[in-house]
Amino acid sequence: MVDLHRELGKALHALEYGGELRMSETAMPSSEEQRPTKPREPIPPDTIFVGKKPLMAYATAAMMHFQTGAKELSVKARGQAISRAVDVVEVVSRRFYAGKLNIKNISIGTEVVGEGDDIRNVSTIEIRVELLA
Amino acid sequence: MVDLHRELGKALHALEYGGELRMSETAMPSSEEQRPTKPREPIPPDTIFVGKKPLMAYATAAMMHFQTGAKELSVKARGQAISRAVDVVEVVSRRFYAGKLNIKNISIGTEVVGEGDDIRNVSTIEIRVELLA
Repeated sequence: MVDLHRELGKALHALEYGGELRMSETAMPSSEEQRPTKPREPIPPDTIFVGKKPLMAYATAAMMHFQTGAKELSVKARGQAISRAVDVVEVVSRRFYAGKLNIKNISIGTEVVGEGDDIRNVSTIEIRVELLA
Repeated sequence: MVDLHRELGKALHALEYGGELRMSETAMPSSEEQRPTKPREPIPPDTIFVGKKPLMAYATAAMMHFQTGAKELSVKARGQAISRAVDVVEVVSRRFYAGKLNIKNISIGTEVVGEGDDIRNVSTIEIRVELLA
């Protein structure tokens, strides 16, 4: 079960302090933050990174985002989380905003991840949605 | 290891007899075809359905498709295979047709699958690519 209240709190917190939601980031243990070898790219606002958390965690975050008055949202994922990113957009647009969410653009790409011998390519997706008035 | 020769043969066969590639279909055992409960939708031409086979099986089929002179291809998948469909398009466009493949359109959707108590929603993706002259 997803703890909705906790998810809402976290989403709200992220929105209040920086206007961005990086779900996969908040899920990381704090020890992760001391690694100097992984430079963190700046997180664009209005973006949800879909990772390994349950679908509804991201769907809730997306709803919270629109609740604050935002009209656009970018749902990003890479690797196997790409399927979940599509699930998130489908659930939010069909179940919560039936007909009121428009998919503005979907783009795919490739990123290089890993270091040293572990360098590999991973596919990415970005789904931009907008809330219709 | 993907048996490239065998894959090429199968892809060629599919193209010669119907002009369509349904990879997940060719992978099924023949006993599957006797099930009357699963009505099969007509397969549109110029389409590859990405399923559980290795990435390169689909990438090879895509290349074979363009080798026959076709200019467009639709890569479809649903559920967890969505990530692999993106991988297929990325590998084919970057490794095999660097810069010569254009992603015309990407659309996502939801399909209802299963019967009786096992009815559930599954996300879908369709990626249309075209070979530039």
